[in-house]
Amino acid sequence: MSQLPSLSQLRDSQAFLRRHLGPDAAEQQAMLAALGLSSRVELIEQTVPPAIRLNRELDLPAALDEQAALSRLRGYAEQNQLWTSLIGMGYHATLTPTVILRNVLENPGWYTAYTPYQPEIAQGRLEALLNFQQMTIDLTGLELANASLLDEATAAAEAMALARRVAKSRSNLFFVDEHCHPQTISVVRTRAEGFGFELLVGPVDNLSQHQVFGALLQYPDTHGEVRDLRPLIEQLHGQQALACVAADLLSLLLLAPPGELGADVVFGSSQRFGVPMGYGGPHAAYFATRDEYKRAIPGRIIGVSRDARGNQALRMALQTREQHIRREKANSNICTAQVLLANIAGFYAVYHGPEGLRRIAQRVHRLTCILASGLERHGIVRLNRHFFDTLTLDVGGSQTAILESARAARINLRILGRGHLGLSLDETSDETTVARLLDIFLGADHGLDVAELDAENLGGGIPDELQRTSTYLTHPVFNSHHSETEMLRYLKQLENRDLALNQSMIPLGSCTMKLNASSEMIPITWPEFAHLHPFAPREQAVGYTAMIAELECWLCAITGFDAICMQPNSGAQGEYAGLLAIRKYHESRKQGARHICLIPASAHGTNPASAQMAGMQVVIVECDEAGNVELEDLKAKAREAGDRLSCLMATYPSTHGVYEEGIREICEVIHSHGGQVYMDGANLNAQVGLARPADIGADVSHMNLHKTFCIPHGGGGPGMGPIGVRAHLAPFVANHPVVPIEGPLPLNGAVSAAPWGSASILPISWMYIAMMGPQLADASEVAILAANYLAQQLGGAFPVLYSGRNGRVAHECILDLRPLKAQTGITEEDVAKRLMDYGFHAPTMSFPVPGTLMVEPTESESKAELDRFIEAMLSIRAEIAEVQSGHWPAEDNPLKHAPHTLADVTEAWERPYTVAQAVVPTAHTRAHKYWPTVNRVDNVYGDRNLFCACVPLDDYR
Amino acid sequence: MSQLPSLSQLRDSQAFLRRHLGPDAAEQQAMLAALGLSSRVELIEQTVPPAIRLNRELDLPAALDEQAALSRLRGYAEQNQLWTSLIGMGYHATLTPTVILRNVLENPGWYTAYTPYQPEIAQGRLEALLNFQQMTIDLTGLELANASLLDEATAAAEAMALARRVAKSRSNLFFVDEHCHPQTISVVRTRAEGFGFELLVGPVDNLSQHQVFGALLQYPDTHGEVRDLRPLIEQLHGQQALACVAADLLSLLLLAPPGELGADVVFGSSQRFGVPMGYGGPHAAYFATRDEYKRAIPGRIIGVSRDARGNQALRMALQTREQHIRREKANSNICTAQVLLANIAGFYAVYHGPEGLRRIAQRVHRLTCILASGLERHGIVRLNRHFFDTLTLDVGGSQTAILESARAARINLRILGRGHLGLSLDETSDETTVARLLDIFLGADHGLDVAELDAENLGGGIPDELQRTSTYLTHPVFNSHHSETEMLRYLKQLENRDLALNQSMIPLGSCTMKLNASSEMIPITWPEFAHLHPFAPREQAVGYTAMIAELECWLCAITGFDAICMQPNSGAQGEYAGLLAIRKYHESRKQGARHICLIPASAHGTNPASAQMAGMQVVIVECDEAGNVELEDLKAKAREAGDRLSCLMATYPSTHGVYEEGIREICEVIHSHGGQVYMDGANLNAQVGLARPADIGADVSHMNLHKTFCIPHGGGGPGMGPIGVRAHLAPFVANHPVVPIEGPLPLNGAVSAAPWGSASILPISWMYIAMMGPQLADASEVAILAANYLAQQLGGAFPVLYSGRNGRVAHECILDLRPLKAQTGITEEDVAKRLMDYGFHAPTMSFPVPGTLMVEPTESESKAELDRFIEAMLSIRAEIAEVQSGHWPAEDNPLKHAPHTLADVTEAWERPYTVAQAVVPTAHTRAHKYWPTVNRVDNVYGDRNLFCACVPLDDYR
Repeated sequence: MSQLPSLSQLRDSQAFLRRHLGPDAAEQQAMLAALGLSSRVELIEQTVPPAIRLNRELDLPAALDEQAALSRLRGYAEQNQLWTSLIGMGYHATLTPTVILRNVLENPGWYTAYTPYQPEIAQGRLEALLNFQQMTIDLTGLELANASLLDEATAAAEAMALARRVAKSRSNLFFVDEHCHPQTISVVRTRAEGFGFELLVGPVDNLSQHQVFGALLQYPDTHGEVRDLRPLIEQLHGQQALACVAADLLSLLLLAPPGELGADVVFGSSQRFGVPMGYGGPHAAYFATRDEYKRAIPGRIIGVSRDARGNQALRMALQTREQHIRREKANSNICTAQVLLANIAGFYAVYHGPEGLRRIAQRVHRLTCILASGLERHGIVRLNRHFFDTLTLDVGGSQTAILESARAARINLRILGRGHLGLSLDETSDETTVARLLDIFLGADHGLDVAELDAENLGGGIPDELQRTSTYLTHPVFNSHHSETEMLRYLKQLENRDLALNQSMIPLGSCTMKLNASSEMIPITWPEFAHLHPFAPREQAVGYTAMIAELECWLCAITGFDAICMQPNSGAQGEYAGLLAIRKYHESRKQGARHICLIPASAHGTNPASAQMAGMQVVIVECDEAGNVELEDLKAKAREAGDRLSCLMATYPSTHGVYEEGIREICEVIHSHGGQVYMDGANLNAQVGLARPADIGADVSHMNLHKTFCIPHGGGGPGMGPIGVRAHLAPFVANHPVVPIEGPLPLNGAVSAAPWGSASILPISWMYIAMMGPQLADASEVAILAANYLAQQLGGAFPVLYSGRNGRVAHECILDLRPLKAQTGITEEDVAKRLMDYGFHAPTMSFPVPGTLMVEPTESESKAELDRFIEAMLSIRAEIAEVQSGHWPAEDNPLKHAPHTLADVTEAWERPYTVAQAVVPTAHTRAHKYWPTVNRVDNVYGDRNLFCACVPLDDYR
Repeated sequence: MSQLPSLSQLRDSQAFLRRHLGPDAAEQQAMLAALGLSSRVELIEQTVPPAIRLNRELDLPAALDEQAALSRLRGYAEQNQLWTSLIGMGYHATLTPTVILRNVLENPGWYTAYTPYQPEIAQGRLEALLNFQQMTIDLTGLELANASLLDEATAAAEAMALARRVAKSRSNLFFVDEHCHPQTISVVRTRAEGFGFELLVGPVDNLSQHQVFGALLQYPDTHGEVRDLRPLIEQLHGQQALACVAADLLSLLLLAPPGELGADVVFGSSQRFGVPMGYGGPHAAYFATRDEYKRAIPGRIIGVSRDARGNQALRMALQTREQHIRREKANSNICTAQVLLANIAGFYAVYHGPEGLRRIAQRVHRLTCILASGLERHGIVRLNRHFFDTLTLDVGGSQTAILESARAARINLRILGRGHLGLSLDETSDETTVARLLDIFLGADHGLDVAELDAENLGGGIPDELQRTSTYLTHPVFNSHHSETEMLRYLKQLENRDLALNQSMIPLGSCTMKLNASSEMIPITWPEFAHLHPFAPREQAVGYTAMIAELECWLCAITGFDAICMQPNSGAQGEYAGLLAIRKYHESRKQGARHICLIPASAHGTNPASAQMAGMQVVIVECDEAGNVELEDLKAKAREAGDRLSCLMATYPSTHGVYEEGIREICEVIHSHGGQVYMDGANLNAQVGLARPADIGADVSHMNLHKTFCIPHGGGGPGMGPIGVRAHLAPFVANHPVVPIEGPLPLNGAVSAAPWGSASILPISWMYIAMMGPQLADASEVAILAANYLAQQLGGAFPVLYSGRNGRVAHECILDLRPLKAQTGITEEDVAKRLMDYGFHAPTMSFPVPGTLMVEPTESESKAELDRFIEAMLSIRAEIAEVQSGHWPAEDNPLKHAPHTLADVTEAWERPYTVAQAVVPTAHTRAHKYWPTVNRVDNVYGDRNLFCACVPLDDYR
């Protein structure tokens, strides 16, 4: 018998690591050899400054293989209990149509796509977002909508900020109806503090007593009351103030839309349009306003423009206004959306169509009417006169008994003070739900029968003057895809237009587009994670609590921080939340005057915007020509700020893709002046396992779970930006008005609507860390290896702009196109568009330096894929040479005409290069051609002729 | 308050029906109007003969909506118990890599594809199947493999039949090692009876005493023994007989492959390569043999050929030999494969690669060695000397106690007689499994420790002379896609090459390609359905039992039969099983001489093949020019057969797509001569809810659950072909040697390996019927409407060959291309290939009539899609006119050059038509172009230069 390997020899602690990494051991060796190196150790020694190196293994549990990790997470899932949650408050059970669930939410073709900055390879999701905007416009009765915001509460804060931007009123006071959802009020209060707005929360009847620049109303309000807003809106308009209305999307199918009542801004959550509650998120907030405010609207707007052939083409509109990242002049730091969730909500409308949606709304309302009538007959006092789906009831001393019965029936009600209870019905409610509620509220002997009540001519809950009369969703897209076959094909047609990670690498420098593994994604649609209400009693969320606690513990181990705040649901929100904590910390020490925030010139635009929002004054620190912070300038400005110095915001490695040697000293300078260090975590993927922000000197940092920790980009959201803080800042992070969080001070305000932000996608990061364990460091090392390999292979053709010690870059590199542009007129945009013909998504364009491309290959790309990218870039360089030599005219060459479409090749070809050179320039494209579906998009035309709704019937298809 | 619709008014009993049907009410009305009709009732009156009409609602429960149906099925799932099943016997727990699970098994891009009869739009799954064949070749050590068979047991029967076809021995005796799996022996025995082979089942030591034409051996055998087969194979070869070896695929990674030992045929299940056990199936059997037998190999083979440009192109090879449907000369009726499952198994090998697979096999083996060693030390007698993963143990009187302990640990062992127990470890087994087994067999105080045992230099279970020394899976495809990113992109690249139902209609006449709804598909990957062992104790399968019983009951209501046999796992298997029941019935009445089977000339080729396999003599009945059975000829032949008449096989509606008026009379003629009527259920989709086979006069009929009842085609399998029988036949349908089935006689043999065939896909049909309820009739009516609409719209351009009463067709229609061919040389194949340029899959070509296209649109296609197809066909007709007129040369026109590829348009274009005419002939193709990836495939070249493995390294990519 021959020798058999033992189990211990066969044990495979790197089972998942090998799946996550692109290059295998031999490929890594080949890449190292190309760099003149023999080991990754050597590379890291040459790259990461010794002063910051961790030099030990991360204190994480050993890696689990995929099945073991899934099985452990399954254990957590099973500790969650799925009761019927009628709590409402902006979160409602909903049915995701399975064709959408399977083909969008569970499909990497949709969830691995990036933000549609390159519209020519993103027409599918751009159309989906346009549907979402059209749906928003139709249902709100307003003229213009954006492509979603983070959640309803932050949308409220954005509405307030917009009101201040555009209202003619000179007041600094913003009014909030006290009957808005408490989490909305809390987020708005937090935001108002940062901006220095006065805030008044009170009964709407008091509105007339104040001069305000705007007011926040809710329709129906948090207690379900449906009120005619016209008198209030008239009052507001009378004082040149804006009316901002939070509205329930489903109710708008039956209610006169706020836009028709005169509202200036209407927003809310689109969660109940098919997006699982997910213990708080992610969901897409919708946001609509008047056309006249289009240049002030926060977030992204999709608009219709035309391409180089004059054909219709979609793209993100008004990007030049950069209002979403207005640096130190910003009053919003919103730079993302919830694309995946907005798409699902839009598809939900496409799938059901106007009649289907109306039927859903009518059914929910009818069930509520039946319940209301039954309760009324037995003398239960309803506190809201009019209603859509929500009843607020005065049950007096019976509250405890009723809640006991509800618990026995596994039903969650909303508990209000003073013997009041609330409940909201939803799409999943039925006759049984109502019957159970009658039993719960009235006891078993009430003698009422739902069918009998239904047979009666019950009154509705909506007053005549607020009945919706206007039509909606008349566009063909909402009236054509109602068979599942048609819906499936529509989804597939859109998917086919887009380039996502399942087709080729997306080598962005601004985002880490690594593998989003199937095993990481599978748990998010497990019912126990997907269907929990964020305000469900904590004892029903034991699994979530344990999973989140463990993830926090792991993130602390990775970053060196002492505590994590999970609430911020985007990176920019993380910045904002972190700066607020710094501000509160200084205030707690009676140093409220510390309000200067130093920011290097190279920083991402969100940094100054977030600082501005946190009420800080931004002072820019210069960078030297190597891209590093000018230490002397920093020292001077810190000194100058003195006891007004609040903090420094710094990205590490820098946005130039370099490990600055002086980072420790930089932190020390700030600390020595009493300031705090905020580390932007965008580039954390180059630190994990090699260095820790807290060790380097950071007091607080956000982690982009959607970059470093594998949450997919979803085509432009969701993101998650929890922050890590050192112990002294821990009391000052966000809390929540509805679900108290242990750790932060109880009265701290919220920064997001839900206590743990987008809780339902946290399993993705949990799975990643559980399956990688201490080998997370391998991922960082391979990411650095890949970036240096690319820099080395491409540097000859395109100069690498910045490098650190030993001429190495960190995990990304900046290719300088400016010299070539000067010589040939070929721009970085031409190269970016030309890459599409080669089947690649462009790297980040002109950030952080105009005229450059920033490339971040990540650890997940194989050497074969990196080599294909190198081949494409070198081939493009050769094409530029043909322009340089005059062989091709400056304006008539494959670069200027890029990208090429089917329309190009099916018409008469009269160009100085061949069709094959245009569309199949490599062997790989001959075998696996990806076609951009429109030619180069004309942004200027679209912005000049802004049109942000579905294209008219005549132009459709 | 305005009037609110009541709940009862809002109730939507057709929620799913509307999703399932393509045309909505208005579209149906427009289609009716085009036919000069005002209602579906009128259409059905004109179409379906009054004599057979059901004229009442199907006796089915009211339709459930999707969520309610899922919830009820979830209830069944939860009644199944998932124990650790170590029963083995050809079924083993396995881990489906999640990237394959999500992107193949749960992806309509893979599961809705049709059999790759049109290779130009199927290169993706053809490559996947080629991988499967290469894997089979490598692991078995043989020269040629097919693209899968239905299951291991039927593969054994096919091996026997192949042996008889090619062996030079003139014996009629086939020998079967008694240590083959019992279900294999049973299926082989059933098949031998049909063919009239003598069968001897005994110990292999007896082999030398007999003259045989072949023998079936198993390696390792059912008790786990690993025996050197060389002496037995030499004996067989000495008498010019074939050695057929059933082998465990995972064991072949460590064992010398049977091909190297001299075996002539090697086959087995590929289930444990990532395909869930699914309570018995579907799984793909692999099948390999010598190159010299290539024209005798059963099933489909994928081969490499070239296309019109001389580029490599894959396609099904040797289709012309038609050996798989050789009509009355057949000794196999196999006309399908298990493509989806074969693809998964092949991808499992691509994902793990040779080293990964070897590691899995080594680990399973090492665990088994540790267990064997531990048991041996405590004196437990092992009955198999050598082993891979299976141990058979003599535990004497402890059997009961051990089984009790196993039950307590929720572990299923194999129970053998005489105090023997068996167990097989698998990929999911680990140290804990072994430790538990030690406890179970030895009691708690055994003092053994798995880690300690592992540390010892244990002997292996495989003798030196049977150690595998040859390499395998050296082809790059098995060594390139080991990171998840690469694997994901490889899967996507293949998927992108194929046209499936998620892109456009597949208007086959030979298969019903209707919607495979997401809600129907979701349950099959629920663990409680996916992971049950088929021989698990029945009390662990309560949910399956209940679900299957209910489905049987519903199928009885739909067909009018009294009982259902769920075992046949394809339509052809159903035919065979039904004919066997007829044969046994006659025999039971001492009328064994009844062996003549009448079959109309228009029948599908499987009919005579199945009859032949059931030991019947086929007599063909003529059809008249309208395509109907010649009643007089039938009467004459029935009379002539007299008391030798066994049965008639008839398809209804006929394969000509017509409701024959005389069907009742036809059945009466047969019955009057003592015969039985077998109704081929291929066209059942035109009967459901309108007529019932049993009412019409059928005694037995199979139902293609993969046509009529929504099981997707999986790219060429799985199928399911249960049979319905009238009460008198019920005792004579298949039973099972391992899991006794109530109803049929206990000693009846099996026709498939698993008691209920491919049980895990039955939830699909269950969901369909549950969600449709009595409205199933609507589906049939709309299917008939769609076919008549197409016939009416296309009949002017292409004559419709057959029609029934009032000039109407049933659910499909035959377009006659022969007149045009005579005039222009343009063939049905040219039209079929040209349709690809228009983005459509071709209809069925030249069946049942050469020179025609048979079109079945199904009820799931919208009017818009039907109109697009009509537009394409009329446009093609106009193109033919251009050839007719001489405008385009007979051999240089878009039809002859079809399909067009990217290669065509990126090279110099010198054709008499434009590029746009070639590739974007319609507005729809301009917006949604699907590209065939190869030009027209040269079948003759491929068959002359047969090559059925992955293409060599040099040619790769």
